[in-house]
Amino acid sequence: MQHSSIKAVLTNTPPLTEVTVNGWVRSFRSNRFIALNDGSTLNNIQCVVDFENFEEALLKQVTVGSALRITGTLIESQGRGQKFEVQVTDIFVHGSADPDTYPIQPKKHSMEFLRENAHLRIRTNTFSAIMRVRSALSFAVHQYFRENGFNYVHTPIITGSDAEGAGEMFRVSTLDAIAPPKTETGDIDYKQDFFGKETNLTVSGQLEAETYAMALGKVYTFGPTFRAENSNTSRHLAEFWMIEPEMAFYNLDDNMDLAEDFIKSVIGYILEHCQEDLEFLDKRLLDEEKNKPQAERSPMALIEKLKFVSENNFKRVSYTEAIDILRNSKPNKKKKFQFPIDEWGADLQSEHERYLVEKHFKCPVILFDYPANIKAFYMRLNEDGKTVRAMDILFPGIGEIVGGSQREERLDVLKEKIKALDIDEKELWWYLDLRKFGTAVHSGFGLGFERLVLFATGMGNIRDVIPFPRTPQNAEF
Amino acid sequence: MQHSSIKAVLTNTPPLTEVTVNGWVRSFRSNRFIALNDGSTLNNIQCVVDFENFEEALLKQVTVGSALRITGTLIESQGRGQKFEVQVTDIFVHGSADPDTYPIQPKKHSMEFLRENAHLRIRTNTFSAIMRVRSALSFAVHQYFRENGFNYVHTPIITGSDAEGAGEMFRVSTLDAIAPPKTETGDIDYKQDFFGKETNLTVSGQLEAETYAMALGKVYTFGPTFRAENSNTSRHLAEFWMIEPEMAFYNLDDNMDLAEDFIKSVIGYILEHCQEDLEFLDKRLLDEEKNKPQAERSPMALIEKLKFVSENNFKRVSYTEAIDILRNSKPNKKKKFQFPIDEWGADLQSEHERYLVEKHFKCPVILFDYPANIKAFYMRLNEDGKTVRAMDILFPGIGEIVGGSQREERLDVLKEKIKALDIDEKELWWYLDLRKFGTAVHSGFGLGFERLVLFATGMGNIRDVIPFPRTPQNAEF
Repeated sequence: MQHSSIKAVLTNTPPLTEVTVNGWVRSFRSNRFIALNDGSTLNNIQCVVDFENFEEALLKQVTVGSALRITGTLIESQGRGQKFEVQVTDIFVHGSADPDTYPIQPKKHSMEFLRENAHLRIRTNTFSAIMRVRSALSFAVHQYFRENGFNYVHTPIITGSDAEGAGEMFRVSTLDAIAPPKTETGDIDYKQDFFGKETNLTVSGQLEAETYAMALGKVYTFGPTFRAENSNTSRHLAEFWMIEPEMAFYNLDDNMDLAEDFIKSVIGYILEHCQEDLEFLDKRLLDEEKNKPQAERSPMALIEKLKFVSENNFKRVSYTEAIDILRNSKPNKKKKFQFPIDEWGADLQSEHERYLVEKHFKCPVILFDYPANIKAFYMRLNEDGKTVRAMDILFPGIGEIVGGSQREERLDVLKEKIKALDIDEKELWWYLDLRKFGTAVHSGFGLGFERLVLFATGMGNIRDVIPFPRTPQNAEF
Repeated sequence: MQHSSIKAVLTNTPPLTEVTVNGWVRSFRSNRFIALNDGSTLNNIQCVVDFENFEEALLKQVTVGSALRITGTLIESQGRGQKFEVQVTDIFVHGSADPDTYPIQPKKHSMEFLRENAHLRIRTNTFSAIMRVRSALSFAVHQYFRENGFNYVHTPIITGSDAEGAGEMFRVSTLDAIAPPKTETGDIDYKQDFFGKETNLTVSGQLEAETYAMALGKVYTFGPTFRAENSNTSRHLAEFWMIEPEMAFYNLDDNMDLAEDFIKSVIGYILEHCQEDLEFLDKRLLDEEKNKPQAERSPMALIEKLKFVSENNFKRVSYTEAIDILRNSKPNKKKKFQFPIDEWGADLQSEHERYLVEKHFKCPVILFDYPANIKAFYMRLNEDGKTVRAMDILFPGIGEIVGGSQREERLDVLKEKIKALDIDEKELWWYLDLRKFGTAVHSGFGLGFERLVLFATGMGNIRDVIPFPRTPQNAEF
């Protein structure tokens, strides 16, 4: 079926060419102007119908949401708002859309209504723009790593390892749910389950990625991860996509350099390749913030903010320095923090991170060298014996977007930490093997992809930047 | 930590440069020649040690598998087998590897032994070559679709929809496994489960991808999918990665054109970018096949086969023609097929597919227009009322690598098919919506990524082309 994308027609087709386009009707004005969109671009193509030449019955089927094939001549537009339009010679209706029942009418819908119609919300400008940006960001991720000598690793989704320790897990099973087989002691007999053991959905591919880094040098994962946490917030999903690079022979400084360069590069990619969609989302955010009190509005517009991040250095601050700044801050002294900062060792809350990023430094911040006891067991202990070579990247409006560390490469230190956590060494035999055989300094980080898409699109709720969000009480579609 | 990848040193560093490389020792000959590999390339760099200048205790730690940082001067090599070598001035041992316990010694290991050590098998030439090719193929997939105007869609992994119908599913739950809450009728009370309903791991992202295709035009998924089938074969995994493009306004011919062009393009990409790894795998296959009887050997070497596929047209044959060919074939007449072909309507078995591809046509084959009753409900019924617009691509040595179809776009026909299968329409309300509102001809296909990697690497067992395979009774790591 010969046809052109509307993007191609609008950008590189010479006038007076006969074109055939397919798409969905966004509006039909004055029985004359059809705005057709095929998803290849945010822009509609205006198709001008001389209604006297078409059957009335046919034109009646041209409703918002209907799918058409239109043939005509591309001409320079006399009207405002577009450079080109199609002088229509033929219309074929693939399928109509009843105006009385089609949910996506050209009016403002609530975000909650659109979430309930996640299969159709992609037909709006907002969601098509978000998802094109999401797709471009995904590609930028793969391209960045490939150009920088990384290999992509598909780490397992179903895991028999329960020592990842990053959060609550979903159980995966094929046992009869009502009457599962049991052992003599009354426990579930997982030996009879599909994998012959208890299995869960992964919370992170890091540990497996480390095994590949210690052979291929530089690797990354980009896949779904899961948290069975009952968090009904605008920042949490039960199923989300995570990017986890892991590099042999990288120390924490190298790790921070990479993370910063990576984020700047992928943001740079969408600034270059998603201009129209970002301009639309920029305007959308401005419109939305008009209704907010001045103090709650973003200090920068969307594109301005993306340029700022891609062009300026992130501020690197040790945890210890950050605690000093927070302890002496106005909100701390005036007891405005819900969790006051008194002592070194306190875990930083979202309010503290936001203060540092949005009020104090006014730019992305990398905090490093955290107290060991608030961070994961696999992070490398510093010589001071109380901090670890961890780093978090904090973004304005988003909070933590990256969490990473230099990994503990010393077998004895790692074993002690595992023992202190009461984890059975046997569970991690293969992870410990990496420290027995050719161990070396290595580092990595994790970036929650949806947090990056939130930041890149200026959206406020993480459920609106993934096609079909999974949250407590919600697995529709 | 300033250092260069071995690939960069071997390919674009001028001689007499001082270089620092990190890597793992593959061999240490004559107390003088260290072969170091860092995973950036199949090739080791030869590091020449003047052992009189180094402590004996240090050199004792230079064992197979140990991790070193080596500094020295890059010089043109006098020895055979390499163009450059490093005249070593400094050695730092990151971590040693005890020769008595390190499993990956420079000798032939059985594939089963390597599978049991999946965290270390990546340190062999064979597995590092496979996984670099896998990574390159992944990138080629993303690049192909991006360059051709597709958007990447992350369809959900956890699904509340049980109408996908492609196979047995894994249940996902956070309910207490021993004493789950029950309803008054004694069933599991999934209302109390995490998502408020029964959920499973997806077997396909197709239905969700269709919703996006009907707004963005051309989309694809590339993510993990799951089958809880007790198939312990060299062709099946319980967890595997699938690529599923879905295109609005594409009929079956367009779909076949795309699939063929796509496969040729990604194979072309690795021929261009993975030359060394493919040459290694090519030689590996030849060596392995030496032990096989002539009749069982591949008719072509690996690279020859990849070039053949990327440069020749796939043969397109209707199911009806294929049945005629099979019915009149020698093996059918001589009753050599386990499942003899008598009647039109028979489902084709692997033996028939292999006959068509490997004996009759001797090239990849696209079969199309299958009997409706052996194919899925969503495939478009032909005007004959008995066949559907389905297509399968069959590859030599692999069998089915792609399965696709034009999708049924007519609401009434689709509803009838759903009814005939006893699926509740309510389960598919959102899928049916696509046919109510702006329906149009559309098509798509699914490609099992591991089957493609099998083909591209010439490996014989699918467990060897994914980092950590999930199969019945096996979810280690």
